[in-house]
Amino acid sequence: MEFIVEVGDNSYPVQVGRGLLAEIGKFTRDCGLVASRCAVITDANVGPLYSKPVLTTLEGQGFLPELIEIAPGEPSKSLAVLEQVYQRLAKAELDRESAIFAVGGGVVGDLAGFAAATYLRGLSLVQVPTSMVAQVDSALGGKTAVNLACGKNLIGSFYQPRLIVADVETLTSLPDREFREGLAEVIKYGAIMEAGFLEWLEQEMPMILARDADRLRHMVERSLRHKAAIVSRDEREGDLRKILNFGHTLGHALEASTAYGNYLHGEAVAIGMVAAARLSTRQGALRAEDAERIRNLLEAAGLKTDLPAGWLTAEFIRALRLDKKRRGEMVEFVLLDRLGHAFTRKLRFEEIIGEEIVG
Amino acid sequence: MEFIVEVGDNSYPVQVGRGLLAEIGKFTRDCGLVASRCAVITDANVGPLYSKPVLTTLEGQGFLPELIEIAPGEPSKSLAVLEQVYQRLAKAELDRESAIFAVGGGVVGDLAGFAAATYLRGLSLVQVPTSMVAQVDSALGGKTAVNLACGKNLIGSFYQPRLIVADVETLTSLPDREFREGLAEVIKYGAIMEAGFLEWLEQEMPMILARDADRLRHMVERSLRHKAAIVSRDEREGDLRKILNFGHTLGHALEASTAYGNYLHGEAVAIGMVAAARLSTRQGALRAEDAERIRNLLEAAGLKTDLPAGWLTAEFIRALRLDKKRRGEMVEFVLLDRLGHAFTRKLRFEEIIGEEIVG
Repeated sequence: MEFIVEVGDNSYPVQVGRGLLAEIGKFTRDCGLVASRCAVITDANVGPLYSKPVLTTLEGQGFLPELIEIAPGEPSKSLAVLEQVYQRLAKAELDRESAIFAVGGGVVGDLAGFAAATYLRGLSLVQVPTSMVAQVDSALGGKTAVNLACGKNLIGSFYQPRLIVADVETLTSLPDREFREGLAEVIKYGAIMEAGFLEWLEQEMPMILARDADRLRHMVERSLRHKAAIVSRDEREGDLRKILNFGHTLGHALEASTAYGNYLHGEAVAIGMVAAARLSTRQGALRAEDAERIRNLLEAAGLKTDLPAGWLTAEFIRALRLDKKRRGEMVEFVLLDRLGHAFTRKLRFEEIIGEEIVG
Repeated sequence: MEFIVEVGDNSYPVQVGRGLLAEIGKFTRDCGLVASRCAVITDANVGPLYSKPVLTTLEGQGFLPELIEIAPGEPSKSLAVLEQVYQRLAKAELDRESAIFAVGGGVVGDLAGFAAATYLRGLSLVQVPTSMVAQVDSALGGKTAVNLACGKNLIGSFYQPRLIVADVETLTSLPDREFREGLAEVIKYGAIMEAGFLEWLEQEMPMILARDADRLRHMVERSLRHKAAIVSRDEREGDLRKILNFGHTLGHALEASTAYGNYLHGEAVAIGMVAAARLSTRQGALRAEDAERIRNLLEAAGLKTDLPAGWLTAEFIRALRLDKKRRGEMVEFVLLDRLGHAFTRKLRFEEIIGEEIVG
């Protein structure tokens, strides 16, 4: 199925379904992109699995794709790898009519998206997310990013793709850990936007974990439609969009302070969401049993929900102070007032790291 | 005097006059920017001359400025220097309400502008151009850029400043060579937009070269208004804005093929404009005597107008093929059909480098 993300002059289609990789060439032409030189950016895990059908469909439609494979994992979201990508784009003689296809998970989408946003001051971007996190979250919304050594996603830009193609069949090849990681973002949409979706997830979790294709399609579509609804009304992170950061303030600090890689992004967000739900209760906004329901659902998805022993380090606090949502000595923190509804409140650092949130 | 650059939701004021550096704090507050942590980015030539009044006026208005000095010259427009700047911004704990002040010439404006466009996905940017090229051209228009080893300005984004402050007194401290370089861009506005301004420049060139303050103020204002008129109608380099690249296609190729630094940007553009004017004549569009008038005015400004011996190297052609205006095997080239009016035409590489343009 197809739906449209409305972002002013930059509205674009999203395709969700099974076996869509082989149709990317046609979808791309349908969006009005010119068949010319282009780049397919992927990583060394995803490339061997899925680059062939993508190159074939593009060549079939008259494109001249250049394949660029980066090393898998968060360390590739660096300025050093970005520079290598730029050099490959220059060598392939891409011009302003060229497109970049980001085929992979969140790292590939963020890095290739930032390259597309900044090479020649902007090329067309097609997101082809193949991981759970990318399909339900990071491919949609126009955020692109790379990391600095001192903080995650500190560099980036808002840049809308021309097309998103989410083929849920790629989810069946994911390692268990990455699959479960993505469920954290799915559960987030239920927590902040739709209690009914939370209920559906509680009921269907066993079939989802068995990777039943129909459930996956519904889950990805529902998640993307929720995100699209927010992004359409708030393209550049005004007030509304902030609620998408539920669980992310503490999640990011946890990732940064334990060295990226100890926790996958979604794993850290799961822990951050439980802490944020409990903080919501402590702030008098959310019933304690609703906070527990979120925790139970995350556990049913196979995710950890407790902050690790010794989490409150100097690095954790430093990472918190680098948070993009910091405003002077406060952080704009996302809380819940009921299941399916979120709001933001400026909190002092001490309120956020108060021992009560550890449970 | 003040005028407004109209770019949709991003309209902003331009201040042109004498002794304006000391008023930057007030101008910035008047634009609605919050007095908070901020960064003043400059280079080691400009900093000792002008950073003090800027820091003083900002502190006087309650800002907490961090001074960041880069090495002067084009080599600083690199990803390596950009990374150092990002690290300083992180260390200074800038947040999304922070502003970056770019105090310097085109290199500082381009680099600091790109840092502002991409740090935390976008901070407020105030351009304080102190060179001729920056005051009459690069500070206005929203283009930011860094170079790759294989090509100039290949990386960048369109990002509008919140304010431009052009203090013409800073032009009096410029070395002669940089002063004359900037006159190439001034003459360009006459050539592509207003024959009357060309005439004024022909008459007033001796007083301009003597750096008479009233002439400088008029010259900077007229140049910026011309550029603003184009940018307002075409924010992101559609057809209209392309005429600003008059002289730049061959100018860039000359800079790139002779290693950046042999020619200053404006010096290369001057040679590129004469070549483009002659190519206009060869294409049947411009009278030969009008092409000569442009050449004579550039010579009166003390600029070279001939391509150097042996200019047609493999590097020159490679640089031409990397031009951002390339479309497949053609380049969209800016030509004149009369003094004060430009248009674009797609030309094959052979037409551009035909021997006739060398004169």
